[in-house]
Amino acid sequence: MEPESPSKRPSAPVLCVDRPVYSEKYMESELLHRKERTPETVKEKLTKQLHCSSDRAKAAVLSFLPILSWLPSYPVRKYLFGDVVSGLSTGVMQLPQGLAYAMLAAVPPVYGLYSSFYPVLLYTFFGTSRHISMGTFAVISLMIGGVAEREAPDSDFYVHQFNSTNKTLDTDARDTRRVQVAVALTCLVGIIQLALGLLRFGFVAIYLAEPLVRGFTTAAAVHVFVSQLKYLLDIKTTRYSGPLSVLYSLIEVLKKIGQTNVASLVVGLVCIVFLYVVKDLNDRFKKKLPVPIPGEIIVVIVSTGISYGMKLCDVYHVDVVGEIPTGLLPPSVPKFSLLHSLVVDSIAIAIVGFSMAISLAKIFALKHGYAVDGNQELIALGLCNFTGSFFHTFTITCSMSRSLVQESTGGKTQIAGLLSSLVVLLVVVAIGFMFEPLPKTVLAAIIMVNLLGMFKQFRDVCLLWGTSRIELAIWVVAFIASVLLGLDYGLLVAIAFAMLTIIYRTQSPKKMILGQIPNTALYYDVEEYEEATECAGIKIFYSNTSIYFANSDLYVSALKQKTGVDPTVIQAKCKSHRQKSKKQKENGKREQSFSQIKEAVVKLDMEMGITHEVVDGEGSDLQENGQLVEAQAESDSEESRNFLEALSPVHSIILDFTPVNFIDSVGAKAIQAVIKEYAEIGVSVFLAGCSRTVLAELRALQFFSGAVTPELVFPTIHDAVLHCQCPRSHQSNDSM
Amino acid sequence: MEPESPSKRPSAPVLCVDRPVYSEKYMESELLHRKERTPETVKEKLTKQLHCSSDRAKAAVLSFLPILSWLPSYPVRKYLFGDVVSGLSTGVMQLPQGLAYAMLAAVPPVYGLYSSFYPVLLYTFFGTSRHISMGTFAVISLMIGGVAEREAPDSDFYVHQFNSTNKTLDTDARDTRRVQVAVALTCLVGIIQLALGLLRFGFVAIYLAEPLVRGFTTAAAVHVFVSQLKYLLDIKTTRYSGPLSVLYSLIEVLKKIGQTNVASLVVGLVCIVFLYVVKDLNDRFKKKLPVPIPGEIIVVIVSTGISYGMKLCDVYHVDVVGEIPTGLLPPSVPKFSLLHSLVVDSIAIAIVGFSMAISLAKIFALKHGYAVDGNQELIALGLCNFTGSFFHTFTITCSMSRSLVQESTGGKTQIAGLLSSLVVLLVVVAIGFMFEPLPKTVLAAIIMVNLLGMFKQFRDVCLLWGTSRIELAIWVVAFIASVLLGLDYGLLVAIAFAMLTIIYRTQSPKKMILGQIPNTALYYDVEEYEEATECAGIKIFYSNTSIYFANSDLYVSALKQKTGVDPTVIQAKCKSHRQKSKKQKENGKREQSFSQIKEAVVKLDMEMGITHEVVDGEGSDLQENGQLVEAQAESDSEESRNFLEALSPVHSIILDFTPVNFIDSVGAKAIQAVIKEYAEIGVSVFLAGCSRTVLAELRALQFFSGAVTPELVFPTIHDAVLHCQCPRSHQSNDSM
Repeated sequence: MEPESPSKRPSAPVLCVDRPVYSEKYMESELLHRKERTPETVKEKLTKQLHCSSDRAKAAVLSFLPILSWLPSYPVRKYLFGDVVSGLSTGVMQLPQGLAYAMLAAVPPVYGLYSSFYPVLLYTFFGTSRHISMGTFAVISLMIGGVAEREAPDSDFYVHQFNSTNKTLDTDARDTRRVQVAVALTCLVGIIQLALGLLRFGFVAIYLAEPLVRGFTTAAAVHVFVSQLKYLLDIKTTRYSGPLSVLYSLIEVLKKIGQTNVASLVVGLVCIVFLYVVKDLNDRFKKKLPVPIPGEIIVVIVSTGISYGMKLCDVYHVDVVGEIPTGLLPPSVPKFSLLHSLVVDSIAIAIVGFSMAISLAKIFALKHGYAVDGNQELIALGLCNFTGSFFHTFTITCSMSRSLVQESTGGKTQIAGLLSSLVVLLVVVAIGFMFEPLPKTVLAAIIMVNLLGMFKQFRDVCLLWGTSRIELAIWVVAFIASVLLGLDYGLLVAIAFAMLTIIYRTQSPKKMILGQIPNTALYYDVEEYEEATECAGIKIFYSNTSIYFANSDLYVSALKQKTGVDPTVIQAKCKSHRQKSKKQKENGKREQSFSQIKEAVVKLDMEMGITHEVVDGEGSDLQENGQLVEAQAESDSEESRNFLEALSPVHSIILDFTPVNFIDSVGAKAIQAVIKEYAEIGVSVFLAGCSRTVLAELRALQFFSGAVTPELVFPTIHDAVLHCQCPRSHQSNDSM
Repeated sequence: MEPESPSKRPSAPVLCVDRPVYSEKYMESELLHRKERTPETVKEKLTKQLHCSSDRAKAAVLSFLPILSWLPSYPVRKYLFGDVVSGLSTGVMQLPQGLAYAMLAAVPPVYGLYSSFYPVLLYTFFGTSRHISMGTFAVISLMIGGVAEREAPDSDFYVHQFNSTNKTLDTDARDTRRVQVAVALTCLVGIIQLALGLLRFGFVAIYLAEPLVRGFTTAAAVHVFVSQLKYLLDIKTTRYSGPLSVLYSLIEVLKKIGQTNVASLVVGLVCIVFLYVVKDLNDRFKKKLPVPIPGEIIVVIVSTGISYGMKLCDVYHVDVVGEIPTGLLPPSVPKFSLLHSLVVDSIAIAIVGFSMAISLAKIFALKHGYAVDGNQELIALGLCNFTGSFFHTFTITCSMSRSLVQESTGGKTQIAGLLSSLVVLLVVVAIGFMFEPLPKTVLAAIIMVNLLGMFKQFRDVCLLWGTSRIELAIWVVAFIASVLLGLDYGLLVAIAFAMLTIIYRTQSPKKMILGQIPNTALYYDVEEYEEATECAGIKIFYSNTSIYFANSDLYVSALKQKTGVDPTVIQAKCKSHRQKSKKQKENGKREQSFSQIKEAVVKLDMEMGITHEVVDGEGSDLQENGQLVEAQAESDSEESRNFLEALSPVHSIILDFTPVNFIDSVGAKAIQAVIKEYAEIGVSVFLAGCSRTVLAELRALQFFSGAVTPELVFPTIHDAVLHCQCPRSHQSNDSM
């Protein structure tokens, strides 16, 4: 489009407006008519709300049990093959991840398998996302592990050996206790998520800005990595929790690095290298491979075989997974007595879990063109965790690595998730015991390789440096706070910081003086654009912020500084001028300055009157006072104008109100005061581009009173500028 | 102004714009040219900053010691009389208030007199406000008292009597300790204020919104009132601090109300009635009285005389002020060892003290047309408190009641404050002992009557109900939190709440569809105004908020809901249409539907391509894909248009970006996704009225990539509407 040559394209649209200049007074009285709306009565509203029809009931049931809406129309021939392949692949991943993340959660491995079965099964019925893979997740598992170890520390479970003074660790009692803690926590997380979902609080996830979540998960990756070092090296260290725990853990690992079990380390490193190569191959030949190479399950099977064959546990003292009971445990009620000390943790875990699930679900929904319902997702997650907790599971959410596999192997619906859970069930009831010789170092290797994706998020720092420093700050604060303070407090600090940045943005606005782009009604920054030219005697002030208590002072001082017209300074000059002329009069030399003195005295009186009005808030004196002054000043007006014009060549200031989205009483008072202050030195202040909502707010705040009338308000900057340039109107405003 | 009849007023300005429609692409390439600016080098900046000239040095000295700038030009004849009258009146008020507020601060009365002397003297030299009266202030004194009683509770000072098992209270030791605490606190407050001032942090006061300060001070008045009840009734109660202390204190007073000393109560009530009447007379005959009736000093003198004459202390057991040492104490260093437990309190006191002073100073400065410097005020207050603490004073700030007297009795400069401090000095060194028989109930009466003004702030509730519910909420939260949690935590809660309201405002924007006001380029809410008419096929969406992480989802869902065009729904319809026509084809009945199927398949491919692009962030596929689709779709375009138009008659959506003041990466991605989502269903999305700063932000965030080009951005809504209405351009956009 080349508008400068309309001859080339005769159809190029042309903007043509030709109308009188409108002020708000005209607009409200003549131009705009409010539509009459009969407000709904409370009864009507209630009836509407409580109205119950079969359609509504059906919709409610369908929304609560999404499976009812998609399963009946499941296109078996088209979707089933993809779902089966995807379900088996994901199920095969669930196994080693379940075992590994159980370690993170500080519970015996078999509980990871339980967690990979029950909730995954349930999600099939209640979930709205077709592609995310529910199950164990590193960050959540680590958070649970932290709580479990805090509530059931090793130190509580040293018992006196029979006929010995040495104390030994009663790992069975400890693990039982930790499972109780993890299960109770999961129950509470489920209740919280369910309650949030039923209360339609799905929107809480919006406070988790992307840079915040990425900084937080990167920090979680650091925590997970450090926590796995001891398994990789196969050394015994105490586990720390609370602030700085990651540093203490790292220091302890480094101290005990001499005790490394070389066999474990070798096995672990070999696994890491193998898994990394497989991951790389999968990425590289994504399109050629029908199904990604199941590196993790290969590693688990092979290393279990080697461990069993070479008796790694007995000969090389490699730490192995150990007992895996076959079959499922009967359901039992979580220990509610533990709940009171888990409230804060469970809130943090509930929110993190949900935000992980919903962010991934949204990405897939956008990609495949269906909708996910945030509130239903919360309900589904809550049900999975709550019900699961009766079957000894720990908290689950979706895992990014598994979800990507589920989607890329052709999964189309929740059926894939169902199948993956059945794979886990098969292992639990049939061949679980076969994994007993699996070295823990292999699980550590699996976890560490899975962290790679999260560590890649460090690249964000460079990206954000180029795009948005504020978001970089959020990322860095979320990362550092979560690494140093632990994941729960870190998340809180990060959220608080993210909110403060919003406040900061409203407090550090860009301020500029606008100038007209010739032959248009567009006004842009005069410092930035060559074409923008200021209109003589008119200053247009722009500051991209709403005006409220915390920035109204900044707004006013920026206005005075940018326009270069400071009423205080000019008044001071006025006074000194008056004093000078007084002296001159006393000397009897220049009698003609009499009118100037009178004018200055009038100014002072006016000032007292007007500012008194500002303090007392009684609007009526002013007008009388103003009229009085006007009458007195009429004779001197010419001279006074000359005098004032010498002080400041600006006769009008236009405040561009387009960026003002809301204004509070402090802001309104500040603008009122500004208008009056400038009126005293003969400068008219106009508001332009005020949105209708802000105008309504101004009215509610009794902004228009005394000298501040709707005539000062114009719908666009151009209206205001034309009004100021018209000599008649300027004069009448000037003497106000 | 009646623009509809321009014939009447030939000079009425007319707005006339006639230009081609601009898109951002044209604007950036042809219309606007950025001014070249050579950025300052670091060296230049440093040189500028560190440049030291005699002018700068002089200005720095004058700004640090404002007395040097105003005293040399002090107009003795004109100002001195007013200053003397005002100084004496204020000094006479300082005396009883100093004694009374010392009681609040839980220190012996004479320390109130010290506090009314040293800092007031110092403020003369460093302060920039000419009318505020520094000295003791009820709220601050109460906060100090709370800390002093917490750090030195009565229970620590019970000692075994000589040859007795009963414990008695060692009031001397207790008071000495409390003075130490108060003085150390004052020292810390001074340091904090001084540091904030030197670091130019005067702006922190802006976080104290007016409704917040008023709610807070009303709560403080409640605290002060309750704390004075026991003195009025002359009963002994323990003093509580911390949350709910005001309730405990009230309950204890009510429990012990039977022990009331009737003589004290009578004296107190008489004083209250007298003071109230005097206050009323002063208010009523403000203009006729040359100097307000000094009710407080009359009450003090008369009641001291009566107490001495009638031996109230001995005969009626009325609690009196007791020992007042004559003369000043030698300076001593505050006990720094106490500081560590006072940090939080001192921050709260420092901020409250400063905000009181600056808000009053600004009111007077505005009234009398001079400037106060927030940072210099902080420095002055800090110096007053810090230096004062070496002379055994407790924290001071300005008091509203005294400042109003100082101003209304004709005070013109800081000389009035100087004189009032000299009045106090005279009493301290000469006649202080004469006030020893003064009953404490009289001081309680003085405090209570002074609280009246603060209790009047309850009227705010009604006022704010009418003007702004959000500000009402701030007031109520500040009041309730401060009453229940105590002043320190209450202030914190109130500030946090006030900040949350700002966030809330950005999250609950007004959303509307705009329509054109005929014959103008103005677009207003179609639901609100009769004249606003929507343009056929174009929806203009307005939401008065910036777009960032915490509201981008809300923005998008509001957009879909308000415009009534939801891409997900339309795509679902598209798919079902495709399936239906597939079936039809399988039945071999209607061959002519082939093109429709093809179109639908193309749509689906497009969708996959485009949304894939969203996830991977690689912009280039899309265009290729788009071109491919364009080529394929050319033949079907007519039919596809009909099909889509049947689904939605809207072909263009314009997002009004004028209220967007900032956008972050999450917001930019959301808008990008919206543009692409709508493009899939053949609806073009345009941005209009984007400010140059937001455009710069969008560029930094790599917003313009792939299908999202600057051609979608228009400087005004009207440009965008005209562009949409021009059939050629619409067509070319539609097939994109």
